[in-house]
Amino acid sequence: MSIGVVHEQTITFESGIRLESGRILAPITLVYELYGTLNADRSNLIMVEHAWTGDAHLAGKRSEEETKPGWWDAIVGPGKLLDTDHYCVLCSNVIGSCYGSTGPASINPKTGKRYNLTFPVITVRDMVRAQELLLDHLGVKRLLCVMGGSMGGMQALEWATQYPERVASVIALATTPRPSPQAISLNAVARWAIYNDPTWKKGEYKHNPKDGLALARGIGHITFLSDESMWQKFDRRFSAKDGLFDFFGQFEVERYLNYNGYNFVDRFDANCFLYLAKALDLYDVAWGYESMADAFSQVQAPIQFFAFSSDWLYPPYQTEEMVTCLQGLGKEVEYHLIQSAYGHDAFLLEHETFSPMVRSLLERVAP
Amino acid sequence: MSIGVVHEQTITFESGIRLESGRILAPITLVYELYGTLNADRSNLIMVEHAWTGDAHLAGKRSEEETKPGWWDAIVGPGKLLDTDHYCVLCSNVIGSCYGSTGPASINPKTGKRYNLTFPVITVRDMVRAQELLLDHLGVKRLLCVMGGSMGGMQALEWATQYPERVASVIALATTPRPSPQAISLNAVARWAIYNDPTWKKGEYKHNPKDGLALARGIGHITFLSDESMWQKFDRRFSAKDGLFDFFGQFEVERYLNYNGYNFVDRFDANCFLYLAKALDLYDVAWGYESMADAFSQVQAPIQFFAFSSDWLYPPYQTEEMVTCLQGLGKEVEYHLIQSAYGHDAFLLEHETFSPMVRSLLERVAP
Repeated sequence: MSIGVVHEQTITFESGIRLESGRILAPITLVYELYGTLNADRSNLIMVEHAWTGDAHLAGKRSEEETKPGWWDAIVGPGKLLDTDHYCVLCSNVIGSCYGSTGPASINPKTGKRYNLTFPVITVRDMVRAQELLLDHLGVKRLLCVMGGSMGGMQALEWATQYPERVASVIALATTPRPSPQAISLNAVARWAIYNDPTWKKGEYKHNPKDGLALARGIGHITFLSDESMWQKFDRRFSAKDGLFDFFGQFEVERYLNYNGYNFVDRFDANCFLYLAKALDLYDVAWGYESMADAFSQVQAPIQFFAFSSDWLYPPYQTEEMVTCLQGLGKEVEYHLIQSAYGHDAFLLEHETFSPMVRSLLERVAP
Repeated sequence: MSIGVVHEQTITFESGIRLESGRILAPITLVYELYGTLNADRSNLIMVEHAWTGDAHLAGKRSEEETKPGWWDAIVGPGKLLDTDHYCVLCSNVIGSCYGSTGPASINPKTGKRYNLTFPVITVRDMVRAQELLLDHLGVKRLLCVMGGSMGGMQALEWATQYPERVASVIALATTPRPSPQAISLNAVARWAIYNDPTWKKGEYKHNPKDGLALARGIGHITFLSDESMWQKFDRRFSAKDGLFDFFGQFEVERYLNYNGYNFVDRFDANCFLYLAKALDLYDVAWGYESMADAFSQVQAPIQFFAFSSDWLYPPYQTEEMVTCLQGLGKEVEYHLIQSAYGHDAFLLEHETFSPMVRSLLERVAP
């Protein structure tokens, strides 16, 4: 059942936080959505973490007129996997983003202008640090579960290692302890595409630098799909509108990248894209520790990992490295390698593949 | 032993050729290099086909001052794999390129101006058709061997299927019967990078559109390497010159892509890059046939294939599809899957992995 019409909430923390870089980011505004009801001892809160270009609008509709529900509506609602009849579910937009939480596109209250490139470089750890303020505000001592895919999985890992006493369980999908140089290089060329756009103006644009940002997103889409899913979806079909020997003739896959790239320009800010890409690249669960094992020695909650066979952005071997490390430390860890053709996006498209295991973990830790 | 100082040769065919598109390309100039000596019955000629941004300068040096020898000098010369004491070795620059053979950067004799985008779209089959003129000119009825990697492998496959009576053996490395939609999509974003560059001016530039072309090449380099080789070469090292929290701070892999991208601008023409990318994407060994089997039924010569385990641009399964098809037709086919971390570039970097098998094939077919 759909959760119906939902409302986003906004809160501002004047004190802000000290970032990993040592700089202070203040004030910090967070936009979030909350579904279901917190129980009396506030022990039924599940925090869902969004990925790179996601937002707080996880489920339901923001108005009756909205045609598309929230991004993970398939698993959040009454009777669904994250059952809002039993759990209270929270999703908050990360700092650095452009969907209401403080980011490069926000107005700096000190100057009255957009931060743009004066915004400090942030890390995934900083995103979670800001979320801790929200948790305190909600009066929740301990999350029943923190769950997320991709950059959302990184945030889940940060909760597990940085705030071990505040999470009862952790679910990380399609993620990595630290992006590979190949993943970094794909973000690097996406950045480069934006830098090359003369309308970007070192971040001081009035209008989103559309050609650069669209191309950057096009590159991203290649990494979200897989070789296999592209064969299935596009094969080598050539656009029916174009001649094979037209210089500008396009393959279907090419049109798809263009179409999705330019669509993205209407919904995401280029500077925010760059800051979050940087947070992804810098991500390392062992940041500030001597090793991954040193970082994972902090973990108290059971962790459930899902990797997807055709995910070449954060390939299964990277999840397996974490699993082996946690097993070596005697931690409670569960690993599921899901056979899927959908690549990195599988975690958003094939929730039925992981639902039974997630349900079972939640039932085990639920109050 | 090095082959020493070599000289490129140039020949122009006034009649040109009819292209796959139906258009006539005339005149056609080809630049080539020839090493060793043709024997009396002209039966010892080995044709080496170059890849996307390669040239005719296969081996030796064009002057005593040249610091770097030709691109496959490691295997061509007296006593080397393609032993110029026994074989005569030919390499010719493909049409569409910018290294002397007729391409978009050439002057159109009809207008006195560069072709630029008035150049016709060409295919790999057209490249080989032009090479046939050269073979006739040299008075060679049959090549002892045609050998190439990547786009060079596609040309070798075209010789095998289009001119079966003119080749005694075929060696194809790191190639594909038709690029996957993923490979096409990576070329698509490279093209897009050039189109986005305002100095490209729909091909009517005075100076190479450097930012767009450098980025396009940067994208290419990601596909030439592999996840594994990037870990080995760069790991997650951050540039020592940059701070981790500098907005423009770079990972080493990012610097590498930038450096190689901008170097490329000095040596390759953007329009030629685009035309050859298109030829790659359009490539299909079954072009004009009912099926791959129909195309391969033409083959008379033994074919030796090499695929490299970490090549994700033209992954081994694509070569294996050809091998299975040829075996099904009862053709003489040999397949070697080389374990390598070097990705697509392995064929240029690890010649010792395939040399024994190549030597053995050549000895078998040699006069």
